[in-house]
Amino acid sequence: MTNSNKVLKLGLPKGSLQDSTLDLFAHAGFHFSVQSRSYFPSIDDDELEAILIRAQEMAHYVQLGAFDVGLTGKDWIIETDADVVEVADLVYSKASMRPVRWVLAVPESSPVKTVKDLEGKHIATEVVNITKKYLAANGVNASVEFSWGATEVKPPDLADAIVEVTETGSSLRANKLRIVETILESNTKLIANRQSWEDPWKREKIESMALLLQGAINAQGKVGLKMNAPKSALEKITSIIPALRQPTVSHLANDQWVALEVIVTEKIVRKLIPELKRAGAEGIFEYDINKLID
Amino acid sequence: MTNSNKVLKLGLPKGSLQDSTLDLFAHAGFHFSVQSRSYFPSIDDDELEAILIRAQEMAHYVQLGAFDVGLTGKDWIIETDADVVEVADLVYSKASMRPVRWVLAVPESSPVKTVKDLEGKHIATEVVNITKKYLAANGVNASVEFSWGATEVKPPDLADAIVEVTETGSSLRANKLRIVETILESNTKLIANRQSWEDPWKREKIESMALLLQGAINAQGKVGLKMNAPKSALEKITSIIPALRQPTVSHLANDQWVALEVIVTEKIVRKLIPELKRAGAEGIFEYDINKLID
Amino acid sequence: MTNSNKVLKLGLPKGSLQDSTLDLFAHAGFHFSVQSRSYFPSIDDDELEAILIRAQEMAHYVQLGAFDVGLTGKDWIIETDADVVEVADLVYSKASMRPVRWVLAVPESSPVKTVKDLEGKHIATEVVNITKKYLAANGVNASVEFSWGATEVKPPDLADAIVEVTETGSSLRANKLRIVETILESNTKLIANRQSWEDPWKREKIESMALLLQGAINAQGKVGLKMNAPKSALEKITSIIPALRQPTVSHLANDQWVALEVIVTEKIVRKLIPELKRAGAEGIFEYDINKLID
Amino acid sequence: MTNSNKVLKLGLPKGSLQDSTLDLFAHAGFHFSVQSRSYFPSIDDDELEAILIRAQEMAHYVQLGAFDVGLTGKDWIIETDADVVEVADLVYSKASMRPVRWVLAVPESSPVKTVKDLEGKHIATEVVNITKKYLAANGVNASVEFSWGATEVKPPDLADAIVEVTETGSSLRANKLRIVETILESNTKLIANRQSWEDPWKREKIESMALLLQGAINAQGKVGLKMNAPKSALEKITSIIPALRQPTVSHLANDQWVALEVIVTEKIVRKLIPELKRAGAEGIFEYDINKLID
Amino acid sequence: MTNSNKVLKLGLPKGSLQDSTLDLFAHAGFHFSVQSRSYFPSIDDDELEAILIRAQEMAHYVQLGAFDVGLTGKDWIIETDADVVEVADLVYSKASMRPVRWVLAVPESSPVKTVKDLEGKHIATEVVNITKKYLAANGVNASVEFSWGATEVKPPDLADAIVEVTETGSSLRANKLRIVETILESNTKLIANRQSWEDPWKREKIESMALLLQGAINAQGKVGLKMNAPKSALEKITSIIPALRQPTVSHLANDQWVALEVIVTEKIVRKLIPELKRAGAEGIFEYDINKLID
Amino acid sequence: MTNSNKVLKLGLPKGSLQDSTLDLFAHAGFHFSVQSRSYFPSIDDDELEAILIRAQEMAHYVQLGAFDVGLTGKDWIIETDADVVEVADLVYSKASMRPVRWVLAVPESSPVKTVKDLEGKHIATEVVNITKKYLAANGVNASVEFSWGATEVKPPDLADAIVEVTETGSSLRANKLRIVETILESNTKLIANRQSWEDPWKREKIESMALLLQGAINAQGKVGLKMNAPKSALEKITSIIPALRQPTVSHLANDQWVALEVIVTEKIVRKLIPELKRAGAEGIFEYDINKLID
Repeated sequence: MTNSNKVLKLGLPKGSLQDSTLDLFAHAGFHFSVQSRSYFPSIDDDELEAILIRAQEMAHYVQLGAFDVGLTGKDWIIETDADVVEVADLVYSKASMRPVRWVLAVPESSPVKTVKDLEGKHIATEVVNITKKYLAANGVNASVEFSWGATEVKPPDLADAIVEVTETGSSLRANKLRIVETILESNTKLIANRQSWEDPWKREKIESMALLLQGAINAQGKVGLKMNAPKSALEKITSIIPALRQPTVSHLANDQWVALEVIVTEKIVRKLIPELKRAGAEGIFEYDINKLID
Repeated sequence: MTNSNKVLKLGLPKGSLQDSTLDLFAHAGFHFSVQSRSYFPSIDDDELEAILIRAQEMAHYVQLGAFDVGLTGKDWIIETDADVVEVADLVYSKASMRPVRWVLAVPESSPVKTVKDLEGKHIATEVVNITKKYLAANGVNASVEFSWGATEVKPPDLADAIVEVTETGSSLRANKLRIVETILESNTKLIANRQSWEDPWKREKIESMALLLQGAINAQGKVGLKMNAPKSALEKITSIIPALRQPTVSHLANDQWVALEVIVTEKIVRKLIPELKRAGAEGIFEYDINKLID
Repeated sequence: MTNSNKVLKLGLPKGSLQDSTLDLFAHAGFHFSVQSRSYFPSIDDDELEAILIRAQEMAHYVQLGAFDVGLTGKDWIIETDADVVEVADLVYSKASMRPVRWVLAVPESSPVKTVKDLEGKHIATEVVNITKKYLAANGVNASVEFSWGATEVKPPDLADAIVEVTETGSSLRANKLRIVETILESNTKLIANRQSWEDPWKREKIESMALLLQGAINAQGKVGLKMNAPKSALEKITSIIPALRQPTVSHLANDQWVALEVIVTEKIVRKLIPELKRAGAEGIFEYDINKLID
Repeated sequence: MTNSNKVLKLGLPKGSLQDSTLDLFAHAGFHFSVQSRSYFPSIDDDELEAILIRAQEMAHYVQLGAFDVGLTGKDWIIETDADVVEVADLVYSKASMRPVRWVLAVPESSPVKTVKDLEGKHIATEVVNITKKYLAANGVNASVEFSWGATEVKPPDLADAIVEVTETGSSLRANKLRIVETILESNTKLIANRQSWEDPWKREKIESMALLLQGAINAQGKVGLKMNAPKSALEKITSIIPALRQPTVSHLANDQWVALEVIVTEKIVRKLIPELKRAGAEGIFEYDINKLID
Repeated sequence: MTNSNKVLKLGLPKGSLQDSTLDLFAHAGFHFSVQSRSYFPSIDDDELEAILIRAQEMAHYVQLGAFDVGLTGKDWIIETDADVVEVADLVYSKASMRPVRWVLAVPESSPVKTVKDLEGKHIATEVVNITKKYLAANGVNASVEFSWGATEVKPPDLADAIVEVTETGSSLRANKLRIVETILESNTKLIANRQSWEDPWKREKIESMALLLQGAINAQGKVGLKMNAPKSALEKITSIIPALRQPTVSHLANDQWVALEVIVTEKIVRKLIPELKRAGAEGIFEYDINKLID
Repeated sequence: MTNSNKVLKLGLPKGSLQDSTLDLFAHAGFHFSVQSRSYFPSIDDDELEAILIRAQEMAHYVQLGAFDVGLTGKDWIIETDADVVEVADLVYSKASMRPVRWVLAVPESSPVKTVKDLEGKHIATEVVNITKKYLAANGVNASVEFSWGATEVKPPDLADAIVEVTETGSSLRANKLRIVETILESNTKLIANRQSWEDPWKREKIESMALLLQGAINAQGKVGLKMNAPKSALEKITSIIPALRQPTVSHLANDQWVALEVIVTEKIVRKLIPELKRAGAEGIFEYDINKLID
């Protein structure tokens, strides 16, 4: 039996996440190329077909089976109330895909202190369903209107409050808005169609993809360190190195010395190297890595 | 009585039309400057306040009186069923704002020949109301689903047909779609709130704005031509020049000669100049103009 | 007698003003070209030699006669106490050369309210002489230290107050500084060596240069307007047009009509055109101009 | 009889001259647009078909009648010994198309002083025929080898001398070569097929094109000047203005004054304006022009 | 005896291959720097002199001994019938230097099916000699004319068929041409002069260069993988890794585990890592390499 | 006892060295981010505060204790006669921070041969104190004037000689100046305030910073080489590798072979690899490193 005509359909988010998503896939070993104006990125894998589609619609189409697997935010899975398998969380370290919050915000000078103060008010948002559920859960009656964008500019003239997505809050502050409450935290997820998930061939391919995407994310901000150490200092050096996993210690020709190799977070290197040096390590050097699968 | 605290609120379309709109206003003499991330362009006119808002929502907010005047497409006025005064058509000659068409399109290989063939089918579009009305007017029952974007990529898997906006059709062709029918032609319009239109001060300001915007559009693709001509050739030369308006003919020191000045479409200059030269004109030169109010 | 070996030496300011200065000269009809790394711009005028030199040193070298004529700020003429002829003020409309102010500034939270409060304090500035004179004139004893740059960052740790140049004050605000007093307003000037000014050939050349530079500045923000008008409306139309100078009114073939041409400030055109139209003008068009010598 | 299916085939030079040629045509009123990778620029004139082809081959194909008309250099007409009609010289003022020289050059240290010293030597060049004729005319026997490019680098190792094209000589100097003799001066020409030239419809179209191209070239470096002058100063002012053609003098409302308008070379404006001002002219302004047909 | 005044002369291809060639040399450890307009790249190796020359002429000058060694295509070696030593094939993975084909092409609508159908026809090409030999070998009489470029545009008006170079065929398709036959496959080669090849010092230097260039090419698309594995899983893991060469297996401190290191093709990593993980590997990471010499 | 409120104040050079300095810190593991117009780069280390200040003033403010530690050139330490601890030399390999020379230069045609010939002359320079000391040390009386910049342009008209900084001398040559003598060689230094240096916590932090900055500089132009070798060839291979430090030799599964790893200067790799290959090494590959602490 051959899998030669089996194909996995992959939905990729078009728009602001597109470049960072394709970049992540490239680090994971999947090199898509996108022709200008085309929605069908090509890749040298006959078992994979990719389509670019808006993140807002992804979960809907994965549920319907139009795609076997796709990337979108937890927010849009909830907003569209889609029934899909959530395979993996993909929390990028780059600005464009780090966890985001949907917040309830009002003008700085507004008397509104909690969601309770919105009774009878008018709220503009791109996530109408999430907002309505949140109001209902808090026993508040308020009208919710779909906003096509530029939502931050609407209060106070075009709305009393908004529910808007934010990473750092700086766009809200720039528009003189105050965050009242956080309604939802969201991050990118790899989701799968329920039926595709039951197909062993598809499931293995989806799981491999998840493993590699997480390996690529995992390697961001990590570096390799290598050094030589006298055997006598080995215990001390090992105790200094953060215990993600034990360092690889290999024998050397000179049997009084060993070579150590370890993958660490780049941010701690500036504290770690001086300590290693003081503990007796020599020939310490740092190098970059692309993927890291623990 | 002073108008010093009177203000006209102007809605400008945020997004793909923003740059060409601000450019048009600059040619008309209104020089806005937009700070990064701000939705409130500034201008050195205390009687004018501008806000950037999505074109889709403009007519709605002009109707409500949130803005006195705004720019948006005829399509979104119809889609939102807004009751506003249509002050002027603004048909740009630049790609971004020339008249556009909303068309019904299907895959090249689809058997659909007219809207009648869509009975029971599934249609994706950003203009749900326009599409529903068009189907109703043609006695067709079909489901219409809102599309967040990338609509061209949906047939045949995610929709049977789409209603999408196009200028040249090239994006549709690139996605192997065939135009079935044109549903609506649209262009940018200057619209006003009904109550603002009844206020004499606001109306005069809106009408001046319309006059200048049309003057700027009018001047695009126009040039001035100036030449000297013997009086004996004046009749012939005048008959050659297209009759937008009679050329300005001024007397010269040498009374056997006159000077002619005329504004013509730049495209015809390459035919006109050789004819003028043959008819006896001399010292012909061409220059650019910024505004033209007939 | 021939002037063929006469040469006028011109000092041009190197650095932040360089591009806008060369641009101004180009508008005035002097097209310099600067080779990368060279301080000697070339021009197709055998009677002119240009050198790029820092604005701070210009007045000093013009006084010494190293240059016959040069461009620098009024501030540096005063700071270096140079004895030169101030031929013309050159107030650009572009950001880089508009009038600037040297201001006394302190941290927002400083108790200093006037220059009098600086007794015994420490002041950092690039204009040590101007600052010392100002303190002396106000009877204040304070130490003044030359600052190589980044002066705004010095208070409160590295200085109690600074004297710094500013156009809009935004850089001071960004560094949380408050302006206490304005010490000097400055703008670019064309200055000449006293002896060169007495040489008739040099003086005529310098005066022509001043005339053309001012003509180029004068034309910035100005446009030409041309229109046809019925003779009956001429008086009313003339009364509407701002009275810089009377419009040029020429006779036309049709003797019931005249042609008017006038140079006006671009900023008023958006008010003027609707009024002209209402007053009976037709075929109104606007065009750009390069130089304007009244 | 209709000309509706008549077409003029135009050859445009592909490569280094392409952009400046299309720019010239645009100034002349012919706006071509070139798709990436296409050799067939489009234009909104059904009577014109354009093809991009190397300048070296142009004259050959115009002679054969593949094109009715084309642009190429005088050098390539001679090199290919083509029998064509030379309709017009097109001497651009921009670097890329100004007259060029084919020169005989040798290493700075070479003993060669004149072409006579090349007896028995080896010459590399792109213009083999022109070089051979020149040698024959001077009675010199030398071998001539076709060079694919980078010809300046060949002496002394790969050739004793070269015949190469140059504008300013700077590339030759940079390669430490010395010019021995100029063999040919060349500039761009509009050429026509002999048979096409006899067809009245084609000839008129070619002549119009030549008129407009020359009008566009003519306008480069020219500007319009306009001023008011008291009648009493008219004679003096007219005598100051260079006599390309008499200025246009129009009557004004105030019959003691006249308006003058004249097209002059931009380079002389910096001398002319001060003289005009001294002679009594007022309200002098300068404006740009696009085409000038005398 | 010293080699201090020995020099190897290297010809580098000027033009479209220049950047990718210099990039390849940099990856191989030879960092040339090219001054603008200079044909003599500099390098910090006194024993190496480089000259930029057109690829078409390279083999000719290597044969003559003007260069000891050079890079050019197999096509131009054949076209110029040069007698040189072909030291190494350099097949880049980048678009600009991958193997190319010279093909016989005709208009899509042409009746020509094989080279035999070209009897009596007219063929345009840059490789006149290759084309003539191919016709002769097939017993076809046809005229062959040198084309300066833009060859794809010539059929059907300026030629019946062309012989043109292509990588993907897309430029031919864009010009509505159909490939009839492939005449020659070509790739870049390092070639040496026969006499230089016999000089032991030069030969060793050429062979080192070939080794490093191939090492740089070899490393493209390769990555290093490193992982820890339990000894018990070693056999299985080794069997999974493609057998370019056995992985480097080193002992670790914990003698139940070993460290594996292997260089693999980047493209297979996305299949390999999930399998390694399933087989028991841990701490798998990937890193980049610059050169790879097997 | 906690260090939580301890802070090290770091002065960074604003201006031409800023980018390369921040780049060096990033390679050392300190990632600053600079907001436009701000002088206070931020970093994710609560114990570090950075300020951008001109290099000329750095030593002065470090001496005063305004900063604990800073980077500036040896030249400005001497010019300002500052009493600071010189912690480390930081000799970058990038153009902007390599060792520079302050030289005495005169016009090419000047008779000046040594500093002795400057008696009674006029010298312009940015380093007035250094110049005065040098003249005094040589027993020369000459006037020294502060130059604001563009110093190279001053001789011969505005100064007889200059003392100016240069890396390659090319700017001096371009201005037709000749170097007479070198007055001072300078490079970037990490300097510390004397009191801060006595504080153990600050000293350790400064020493760690120095270690990491030197590690980053050290790694520039270095690469890692890894290879397998038969035990029998180990001695020969080890003798070939330059003796910075002994290579790391690890045992392999196959006990006839060993793995070698060594860090070498990239420049010698092109000589080293062919020799290693000939000596029996296999599977040689090269990789990049970020930091290297010996």
